Amino acid sequence: MIKHISGGVCAAQGFTANGIHCGIRKNKTKKDLALIYSACPATAAAVYTTNLVKGAPLLVTKAHLANGQARAVICNSGNANTCNANGIEVAEQMSEALAKELGINANDVVVASTGVIGQPLNLEPIVEGIPALVRGLSADGGDAAAEGIMTTDTVKKEDAVSFEIGGKTCHLGGIAKGSGMIHPNMATMLVFITTDAAISAPMLQKALSGDITNTFNMVSVDGDTSTNDMVTVLANGMAGNAEITEENEDFATFMKALNTVTVALCRKIAGDGEGATKLLECNVTGAKDVPTAKTVAKSVICSSLLKAAMFGADANWGRVLCAIGYSGADVDVNAVDVSFRSTKGEIAVCKNGAGVEFSEEKAKEILLESEIEILISLGNGGGKATAWGCDLTYDYVKINGDYRT
Amino acid sequence: MIKHISGGVCAAQGFTANGIHCGIRKNKTKKDLALIYSACPATAAAVYTTNLVKGAPLLVTKAHLANGQARAVICNSGNANTCNANGIEVAEQMSEALAKELGINANDVVVASTGVIGQPLNLEPIVEGIPALVRGLSADGGDAAAEGIMTTDTVKKEDAVSFEIGGKTCHLGGIAKGSGMIHPNMATMLVFITTDAAISAPMLQKALSGDITNTFNMVSVDGDTSTNDMVTVLANGMAGNAEITEENEDFATFMKALNTVTVALCRKIAGDGEGATKLLECNVTGAKDVPTAKTVAKSVICSSLLKAAMFGADANWGRVLCAIGYSGADVDVNAVDVSFRSTKGEIAVCKNGAGVEFSEEKAKEILLESEIEILISLGNGGGKATAWGCDLTYDYVKINGDYRT
Repeated sequence: MIKHISGGVCAAQGFTANGIHCGIRKNKTKKDLALIYSACPATAAAVYTTNLVKGAPLLVTKAHLANGQARAVICNSGNANTCNANGIEVAEQMSEALAKELGINANDVVVASTGVIGQPLNLEPIVEGIPALVRGLSADGGDAAAEGIMTTDTVKKEDAVSFEIGGKTCHLGGIAKGSGMIHPNMATMLVFITTDAAISAPMLQKALSGDITNTFNMVSVDGDTSTNDMVTVLANGMAGNAEITEENEDFATFMKALNTVTVALCRKIAGDGEGATKLLECNVTGAKDVPTAKTVAKSVICSSLLKAAMFGADANWGRVLCAIGYSGADVDVNAVDVSFRSTKGEIAVCKNGAGVEFSEEKAKEILLESEIEILISLGNGGGKATAWGCDLTYDYVKINGDYRT
Repeated sequence: MIKHISGGVCAAQGFTANGIHCGIRKNKTKKDLALIYSACPATAAAVYTTNLVKGAPLLVTKAHLANGQARAVICNSGNANTCNANGIEVAEQMSEALAKELGINANDVVVASTGVIGQPLNLEPIVEGIPALVRGLSADGGDAAAEGIMTTDTVKKEDAVSFEIGGKTCHLGGIAKGSGMIHPNMATMLVFITTDAAISAPMLQKALSGDITNTFNMVSVDGDTSTNDMVTVLANGMAGNAEITEENEDFATFMKALNTVTVALCRKIAGDGEGATKLLECNVTGAKDVPTAKTVAKSVICSSLLKAAMFGADANWGRVLCAIGYSGADVDVNAVDVSFRSTKGEIAVCKNGAGVEFSEEKAKEILLESEIEILISLGNGGGKATAWGCDLTYDYVKINGDYRT
């Protein structure tokens, strides 16, 4: 049984964390440096952005994780350390400074940066901040770490669960940051997950790579795939379960626990999309196969026109049909049904590709809620998929009209 | 020599036009019905949206143009006649009512509708308006027709040129509407072009199909491909040139004239994108081939983040690099140069994939203009392409947050 618990990235045994303001961000009330640390060596897995422009920290992390091992994650916000001539060097020095302070190998450091692209990252505040960052590590530090990786995020994003494998209680938790430049492909945003379950590095990678195809890769805030997207998982085995080394029942349980946390983080990222007032969840059923369902769900969730209509609580379902039609998916548009749903109820707006009469008043009431489901049936097929996004608002424009100042 | 002239869709001999308010739109000061008419039979060509959801008028027009002939174009705004159970029937009745009044065959009518999707189109005001619409046909009616097809457009869009073929002066002009739901693929928006050049139907189709790949298919306002996109050309031969029936010098001249008008209309559509304050033109050079250049230009022009930055006159070139990186094009990101240009000058912001020092003050001055060029060099290849778009603004959100009311 999977139970939601508190503790975020420190919910798993042996993990401590911290977050501080070291001086990369001008606003001193904003934390800008986060650390996660495992008391013992952990297996590690990661997925990275498919953007050809990759942040230097990702390249350094990829090299560090080649052996499937890691013990610490360091991440700064305020500067992405991307498109800088000295980026690799800076990311390596950041790892080395942390490793020295922790007394571990620089190779066991996951290093990440998020923020503005193309401005040199000043190492000085980071190097000067590391001693205090390490001194402050604690099992209650998950919140501080979640804050330390935020950029335009308005809320910190964390989630954790407990579950059982072979009679042993395991824990898995994570933190995420992501608000704009969110349209992942194969990997996404910054997400750091920890678990005390024992699982081999190859199986951990398999679990993560499988999970993201249905979770982080199904989120879009603005259609822009970040250069710095990365999801990592550290598993330190302190739960004492027999190590998972194959696709057995324990692996299935682990996947389920992982998915519970990643879906919760996806919803938090989409709901806190830059400027968003609403979380949108698009549920597609009846597709001829899963890829078709995913293509349709992603296309609908990415439509600027639909996103703006949802902001205005306008049941403009024609824009749903339009987005299905240009998605590139093989769909019989004359078999499409569309409904909107929220805590205020559900309303059918389109049957067999044509409009049905509905109460605009009731639709408005449903769409004024902060979490909206867009339900699409494509026919009688068995393929289904879910995608998450948010509405398009004045504040998205405001935030991004002058982000650097 | 190709010369810009006035007259729009009536610049070519034998074409008259008109536009009236018939009552589809509530606001009586807005025209909502347009007509273009050729005094003699014309060859006709068209391209249509690739959206699987196609407006009923497109399907009817496609059937009517199967013989490569047409004499009249009728288009209403305010309602797209799309996703309605009786759409085909309504579009056919609209053609028949016009044909009867003009004394032509219903088969020779191009019928189009633009506006809200999924609400039944009321034929009554159209049928009642047709006699006045026809009575008012005149060689000065191009402006009225251009107004009659507008929806959220803030300016009417028309252009025309004169050119010579075989010693005969030919004319070609067009009107366009398009402001939101603009992200064409193979065909786009509503554009009606007329010419008095003599050209066979197959060659006219070849000219149009070739031209749009570099013009309308390179425009994006919001990434949403409309269900009702269509471009048609009518050529009535009244210029008296020897009919163009093969890819000779005359065909090349015709293509050039057509391209002059379509590029002008593209710039007008992009510059008048919903809520836009700026026209963006992305010029990509040095690509390994044209498809690569096009993919990059389209990706940059479609980036919500870059569009918002341009609204804020923020030289956030990292977003240009980011959009190049996720475009899917095969690019060496370490060879990319980026500059911004306007009437206030040009400024280099990125060389070889990394930032260069530049004056933020000068960049701001350049980016505060209403037409911005984003210049991207990908290396030493011969491929180049241009795409057009606009900034993302508060007004885009406002217009689309509650479009139906």
